[in-house]
Amino acid sequence: MKKVSISVDAMGGDNAPEAVVDGCVQAVLEDPDIRVVLCGDSESIQAALDRNTYPQEQVVVLHTTEVIEVDEPPVNAIRTKKDSSLVKGIRLVREKRTDAFVSAGSTGAILAGGTLILGRIKGIERPALGSFIPNSVGFTLLLDCGANVDSKPEYLYQFAKMGSIYYKTFMNKENPSVGLVNIGEEESKGNQLSKEAYKLLAGDTGLNFIGNIEGREIPAGAADVVVCDGFVGNVILKYTEGFATSLFGMLKETFLSNMKSKMGALLLKGSMKEMLTKFDYTEYGGAPLLGLEGLVVKAHGSSDAKAFKNAILQCKKFSQEQVNAQIKENLDIVEKE
Amino acid sequence: MKKVSISVDAMGGDNAPEAVVDGCVQAVLEDPDIRVVLCGDSESIQAALDRNTYPQEQVVVLHTTEVIEVDEPPVNAIRTKKDSSLVKGIRLVREKRTDAFVSAGSTGAILAGGTLILGRIKGIERPALGSFIPNSVGFTLLLDCGANVDSKPEYLYQFAKMGSIYYKTFMNKENPSVGLVNIGEEESKGNQLSKEAYKLLAGDTGLNFIGNIEGREIPAGAADVVVCDGFVGNVILKYTEGFATSLFGMLKETFLSNMKSKMGALLLKGSMKEMLTKFDYTEYGGAPLLGLEGLVVKAHGSSDAKAFKNAILQCKKFSQEQVNAQIKENLDIVEKE
Repeated sequence: MKKVSISVDAMGGDNAPEAVVDGCVQAVLEDPDIRVVLCGDSESIQAALDRNTYPQEQVVVLHTTEVIEVDEPPVNAIRTKKDSSLVKGIRLVREKRTDAFVSAGSTGAILAGGTLILGRIKGIERPALGSFIPNSVGFTLLLDCGANVDSKPEYLYQFAKMGSIYYKTFMNKENPSVGLVNIGEEESKGNQLSKEAYKLLAGDTGLNFIGNIEGREIPAGAADVVVCDGFVGNVILKYTEGFATSLFGMLKETFLSNMKSKMGALLLKGSMKEMLTKFDYTEYGGAPLLGLEGLVVKAHGSSDAKAFKNAILQCKKFSQEQVNAQIKENLDIVEKE
Repeated sequence: MKKVSISVDAMGGDNAPEAVVDGCVQAVLEDPDIRVVLCGDSESIQAALDRNTYPQEQVVVLHTTEVIEVDEPPVNAIRTKKDSSLVKGIRLVREKRTDAFVSAGSTGAILAGGTLILGRIKGIERPALGSFIPNSVGFTLLLDCGANVDSKPEYLYQFAKMGSIYYKTFMNKENPSVGLVNIGEEESKGNQLSKEAYKLLAGDTGLNFIGNIEGREIPAGAADVVVCDGFVGNVILKYTEGFATSLFGMLKETFLSNMKSKMGALLLKGSMKEMLTKFDYTEYGGAPLLGLEGLVVKAHGSSDAKAFKNAILQCKKFSQEQVNAQIKENLDIVEKE
């Protein structure tokens, strides 16, 4: 198996650098083919590393002096903070010194960094965050999950094209179905954006477009790939996480409410494990930014060590599947008349 | 207790007129203070009624000859189809011959009918559908749930004002908290609409505005009232329904997967009932259109008899609480400078 080298933004996310460093250590311990380059303040990274025992040959620290804050205007931050963990980390990908870059930092900054430093694949106006969310029969690829708000219809069409290639590559399924998030099934329903995007999607026979898909059909797995504006996608993604957490919390309370139900819960423990894992967001790594000339992965902002470890492991898979290279090779955008 | 008279669109919804008629019969049998006026094709209504035993003094049939189709342009349909169940039913409210109107038909037509026939409350540019969705600690009022897409910031501000009054009246809670659906907590985050709406909401000290609320916080009950554009609200509302259905379906499968889990499920049956009821959309009636000069309630399009019965019972409660009269009386819109 080919070794994979990943540059990591050690300063990004709510629990950086500790959770990031711990997650990286866990990942390299689990997989000897992974090497991480931890970008950030070397002193605090080393302090976090020193709390762990780890294979030194798999961990490199790259000192940087600047940090991009959550509320900074992203493009400006990327242009001015050349010595930030984010800019340095993505530069390593550009220089082909690493295969991928991962960050739990702000989506806006990661998007700006990826776009400005790596560039976009020809035909793609806006890279999109593609996340897999659980449904009753498997997983739905939802995009965009928050990289682009106030999208144009063309963006949604490009999301669909990239999503189809990604789903096919990653889930190994020919001709995945594509649905457009909308508030009604009929073509005439929706807002300005969805009505215009519908036409573009329906006009491309290369897509397996199945039409509008309402909120209630998404969890049933009615489409493999579901496209929408990043505002809507981000709300759906985070709502899924919150809803599952709430529901399982309520379930737990019910299970503990009396002796009879406690016994019942005990008997169910084994069989429920699979379902609980499916809805545990820390099990999924991160989401790749589709459409870039290189691999950039966004990890959950509140990633703990386990979530970050999974982001690193997932990243190796994205790299091996050559997600963006596949998109570049197979993209076949129909130009609007 | 004052008697409540409700005009009903017997022709609206996926299962009309049978489910509508059956639901009405169940409602009047359950509550002797409710009287329904079934508007629609008298022959098919009577045929549906004849399948039931019902108190004749509580059920009136009003024959109409026209039906508004799902894909008709709503405003035009309301203007031309004067003898439709929808127009006739809402006219009864306007003429004060009934206290409320209920329909499981198309939201667009109901909104157009309510606005054109009853008119809007002064200060409200767009009436909104306000639905209660379950959260871990109670219920969240979500609006708009699909009456208005491509909203202006002012609409969202007005939704917040109406929602606060409705929540206070209906849930009996002073000063309910209001959150703005967004993709980040910071004021600077979001799309054009949310950024501008934020300013209007923050500028009104009469509102208990708690700022932006992300998708994951909604199910935790982080805000009592949650405002957003109708496209986003409709997706959240329907996604909630679909997600709960999927999750409980998966849970059921898990429960039945082996003998041990079957026994566990049996022990849990009693304590899980409350939770299952909370997430069963057929238990909730419908959503009122807030901001009209009269009471119009939208029932779920795929309402079965039970769901429609609950819509009728809920409607009585809305009528007694004088939802829209309360809004009219207490509305205090701060004009933009």
